Amino acid sequence: MKAFLRAVIVWGMGIMMTLVLAQAHDDDKKPYVLVIHGGAGTILKKNMTAEKELAYRTKLDEALRTGQAILEGGGTAVDAVVATINVMENSPLFNAGKGAVFNHRGENEMDASIMDGRDLNAGAVAGVRRVKNPINLAREVMTNSKHVMLSGEGAEEFADSRGVELVDPAYFRTKKRWNQLQKALERDQVFLDHDGDQDSGKPDTDKIADRGRDPEDPDQKFGTVGAAALDIHGNLAAGTSTGGMTNKRWNRIGDSPVIGAGTYADNNSCALSATGHGEYFLRAVVAHSVCALMEYKGLTLQQAADEIVMNKLVRMGGEGGIIAVDRAGNVTMTFNTEGMYRGYVKGQGEPVIQIYKEE
Amino acid sequence: MKAFLRAVIVWGMGIMMTLVLAQAHDDDKKPYVLVIHGGAGTILKKNMTAEKELAYRTKLDEALRTGQAILEGGGTAVDAVVATINVMENSPLFNAGKGAVFNHRGENEMDASIMDGRDLNAGAVAGVRRVKNPINLAREVMTNSKHVMLSGEGAEEFADSRGVELVDPAYFRTKKRWNQLQKALERDQVFLDHDGDQDSGKPDTDKIADRGRDPEDPDQKFGTVGAAALDIHGNLAAGTSTGGMTNKRWNRIGDSPVIGAGTYADNNSCALSATGHGEYFLRAVVAHSVCALMEYKGLTLQQAADEIVMNKLVRMGGEGGIIAVDRAGNVTMTFNTEGMYRGYVKGQGEPVIQIYKEE
Repeated sequence: MKAFLRAVIVWGMGIMMTLVLAQAHDDDKKPYVLVIHGGAGTILKKNMTAEKELAYRTKLDEALRTGQAILEGGGTAVDAVVATINVMENSPLFNAGKGAVFNHRGENEMDASIMDGRDLNAGAVAGVRRVKNPINLAREVMTNSKHVMLSGEGAEEFADSRGVELVDPAYFRTKKRWNQLQKALERDQVFLDHDGDQDSGKPDTDKIADRGRDPEDPDQKFGTVGAAALDIHGNLAAGTSTGGMTNKRWNRIGDSPVIGAGTYADNNSCALSATGHGEYFLRAVVAHSVCALMEYKGLTLQQAADEIVMNKLVRMGGEGGIIAVDRAGNVTMTFNTEGMYRGYVKGQGEPVIQIYKEE
Repeated sequence: MKAFLRAVIVWGMGIMMTLVLAQAHDDDKKPYVLVIHGGAGTILKKNMTAEKELAYRTKLDEALRTGQAILEGGGTAVDAVVATINVMENSPLFNAGKGAVFNHRGENEMDASIMDGRDLNAGAVAGVRRVKNPINLAREVMTNSKHVMLSGEGAEEFADSRGVELVDPAYFRTKKRWNQLQKALERDQVFLDHDGDQDSGKPDTDKIADRGRDPEDPDQKFGTVGAAALDIHGNLAAGTSTGGMTNKRWNRIGDSPVIGAGTYADNNSCALSATGHGEYFLRAVVAHSVCALMEYKGLTLQQAADEIVMNKLVRMGGEGGIIAVDRAGNVTMTFNTEGMYRGYVKGQGEPVIQIYKEE
């Protein structure tokens, strides 16, 4: 009996060891990671209804699981980034694709960019108005053009020549965003009455930041979507897609379509997507700065993110955040605002989704 | 007699010391520096006529002396950069302003950017067709808008609202550039006949580089102008202006109007303007990379320039060069092509102007 028990124990331990080793082997084979954001801003629980919060959490979960399935199947980081962003672009919850904000002329004018950390190949589009999924066009620019950045009608002409899906501009119009534009236009008017010509004089950061705020929907301003991934092949990629700022004028281009500012990916450091007050992110070359601090100064991903987002940007007055993953699979979701729609998933694990600062 | 001689010697030494100290004081007060480029490429002496070379040297000299006078008078680095670039924009010799190349549609479509190293303020415009001096509009965006980057017709609308000089697009048309476009269109045709659709398939660096070459005017491709300055107040600034690539399509945006790629300035490191195959410069975030290597890795300006231009870009296949000045007044003019129109001036010294690799 004792010998039988011993045999059972040894047999059991053998099975357990096999399982542990298999698991370790599996983890070793697939250390894939996906991290996303759906925009940063003054997102406070007190301003959020249970329904709205659930809607965001559900959509972020769907986005993560979509990319996770691709990575699990051996898909590339670029594939995962595009598919993940598509889920958010196709949802009216986020300021990208279907939910893009309106510019001063009442148009939806979108930007996107993507970068492959394997070879530093990159693609970007600025100011497109008929491309259903701007991130798909950015990818097409990256893989099937000799250029990195296309803009406006020319970018749409290229999209058409490559079979990238175009839609009627009406597709992007949502009631919620239209109302935001009307409020923004009204506030500009008030602002004009009190402070003279809004478009002249030195830029005043406080006024500008304030002008962009909607107390009833404070998260509209920095609503951009983005994703960064590490695939089982060890490659990094990142992408960003946005409608820009409500009431923007003069074919303004923010940081989202700018390689180095809103998006960067380099297998030597990390893959990163940013969301925030684009002008500051452009001036600080945020995405590339984080990568450079890792590569040139030897900082960890979190140290680099803290230095740029929590120190440099805060000193400059630039609100927003980033999500990033490094080649070891470390993740950061760092922001200096009240909240950021965000989440990550590692391997076959469960998605982790967060919205508020303390969570 | 001996006492008299001694007195003369002491008196003479006193005068000399005073002169030396005055000089030192003067240098201390005004260590201003200006460095410029007028584009990089396959610029070979054998392809250059004496007249053409003289024309370039004369115009580069004029540009340097224009900025030098501003810096000598206590003007800011930003003032000097703009005035210096204006001289080159107004000359048909360079691919910027008056001498801008034609795009695929036979239009002159220009980009420019400027950055102030003192506060990291920046302005950029992409795809403007009626702005006489795009660098002036970039400056206007920097100082008198809440944005960093404007594009296309929106940028021109902003220019109009701010009184920035607009001209009829015919102003930019030059016979030389028109002929270059015709040759490029012909070569594309030949290319099409032999290699299928030029706009599909994976980008082929060799083909692309080759397609952009005009054996009779090999310097046309990377003809961009730029300037970087250190003023007597210790501030750095840099700017870049370009017509982009001959025969470009789809409202392509290169590195010139992208803060971090074609232009960057930070008093903590250096001020830099780039010229070259824009797509590579965008992917490598060239301007910011040089600054980052100085700030984060402690490299000298020359070490940083060599690492990015002579190592990283060469590995990627990106042809071109940079000019830069750091806060100590060190200058670099580093390029991996056969030549680069370039020059610098330090304080009240004589301008140094170079064109070929060995000079």
